[in-house]
Amino acid sequence: MPDTSDNLRVVLVATRNPLNLGAAARAMSNFGFAHLRVVNPYEVAFREARSAVGASAILANAEEYTTVADAVADCTLVVGTTAVRHRELQHPLRRLEYGARLIRKRLVADRVALLFGSEKVGLASRDLSHCHWLLRIPTREEHISMNLGQAVAVSLYELVRDVKAVQRPEKIQRATMREAERITAVLLDALRASGYVQPDAAAATEDKVRRLVRRLSLEAADAEVLLGMLRQVVWKVRQ
Amino acid sequence: MPDTSDNLRVVLVATRNPLNLGAAARAMSNFGFAHLRVVNPYEVAFREARSAVGASAILANAEEYTTVADAVADCTLVVGTTAVRHRELQHPLRRLEYGARLIRKRLVADRVALLFGSEKVGLASRDLSHCHWLLRIPTREEHISMNLGQAVAVSLYELVRDVKAVQRPEKIQRATMREAERITAVLLDALRASGYVQPDAAAATEDKVRRLVRRLSLEAADAEVLLGMLRQVVWKVRQ
Repeated sequence: MPDTSDNLRVVLVATRNPLNLGAAARAMSNFGFAHLRVVNPYEVAFREARSAVGASAILANAEEYTTVADAVADCTLVVGTTAVRHRELQHPLRRLEYGARLIRKRLVADRVALLFGSEKVGLASRDLSHCHWLLRIPTREEHISMNLGQAVAVSLYELVRDVKAVQRPEKIQRATMREAERITAVLLDALRASGYVQPDAAAATEDKVRRLVRRLSLEAADAEVLLGMLRQVVWKVRQ
Repeated sequence: MPDTSDNLRVVLVATRNPLNLGAAARAMSNFGFAHLRVVNPYEVAFREARSAVGASAILANAEEYTTVADAVADCTLVVGTTAVRHRELQHPLRRLEYGARLIRKRLVADRVALLFGSEKVGLASRDLSHCHWLLRIPTREEHISMNLGQAVAVSLYELVRDVKAVQRPEKIQRATMREAERITAVLLDALRASGYVQPDAAAATEDKVRRLVRRLSLEAADAEVLLGMLRQVVWKVRQ
């Protein structure tokens, strides 16, 4: 979670559906963004969302504005979200992967507004004129329009996404070759005792079993469990 | 969009809310994944979601199963999603950023199942036993549980996310210094004509204006528009 999340203002413009207001607030809470602003929401939708059971503190504390200008007045960067691709747009249009990087940089020192338009028509041309640039989520050309709550979730996820997590080493403790060899030995015991190993192919079978055990890429804890299982089987077979 | 998206099976287990089924299908369509499987959905929820106006082909073609085992039988990798952090989990738990990378690699050649549990309780212990490992979305510790439709959207976004898009160069054409200098000159004309420039500070004012114009980091098209505006102003002021 960036400490900078306190500098983001999520601005929902003319939202119609109380479920979407609730979903946006929930995603904000999931990803650690506390400040929601609404511009001209459908009155009933806003009232319903706010009074819904389980409505978050974010929704309860949402600030209401009548114009986009007022809602972004204290910010230094205003970014609008859009599904539109065409260059009827009068703004630079950036993919979320890149745009989020620019926003993260600005959030370190500045207050940034991220605007989402209404479910039916998105942000109006007048709303867009308050934006420095636009953000688009990389959806399929054939289906560009996202659900509002999902668009908010995906955008905020990209803002908190940890680049370093992609390379983070696994903490899984793998079995050592000593443990693998123990398993190989006990498995071979079990196979010999049960008549699986043909005497004239004993050496080949041993190699085959050893390779198979290596390919399992066992975790250390599993190796121990498996060894216990096999020992029990050997004991039973030999009775 | 990866061509490999055809190899993913999104598996929703015991989903209760038709709106979530619809939202999951919409996110799949947005991000280019066509194959939805449902395991024991609430009967009414599934029927409602399927018959909803605007329900996607994805929902109409969803395959229904009664067990997780059947739903993942033709896959070679099964990944469960979970909000749980604790190591009561018997599985490797990977953050989405890293887990998605592993899934993408496997999708090149193999069929992969991505499981999402019910809204209330997530995936049951028995469901998890069919998984190779688990995926978690990096939410805040204080609010780990995501809306189902949003969790599907965020997970699929990470799968189609274009790493290279982060570094993609901008296609904005910036104004050259020749254009900036033209603007500087005309702005100075306007300032002189309107008495803004003090004769004893003319050189300092010229430098100040030049620096200001450079800081605007103008786009080429905007430079032209601004030049036209300023020329009109100069013409008027001089009348």
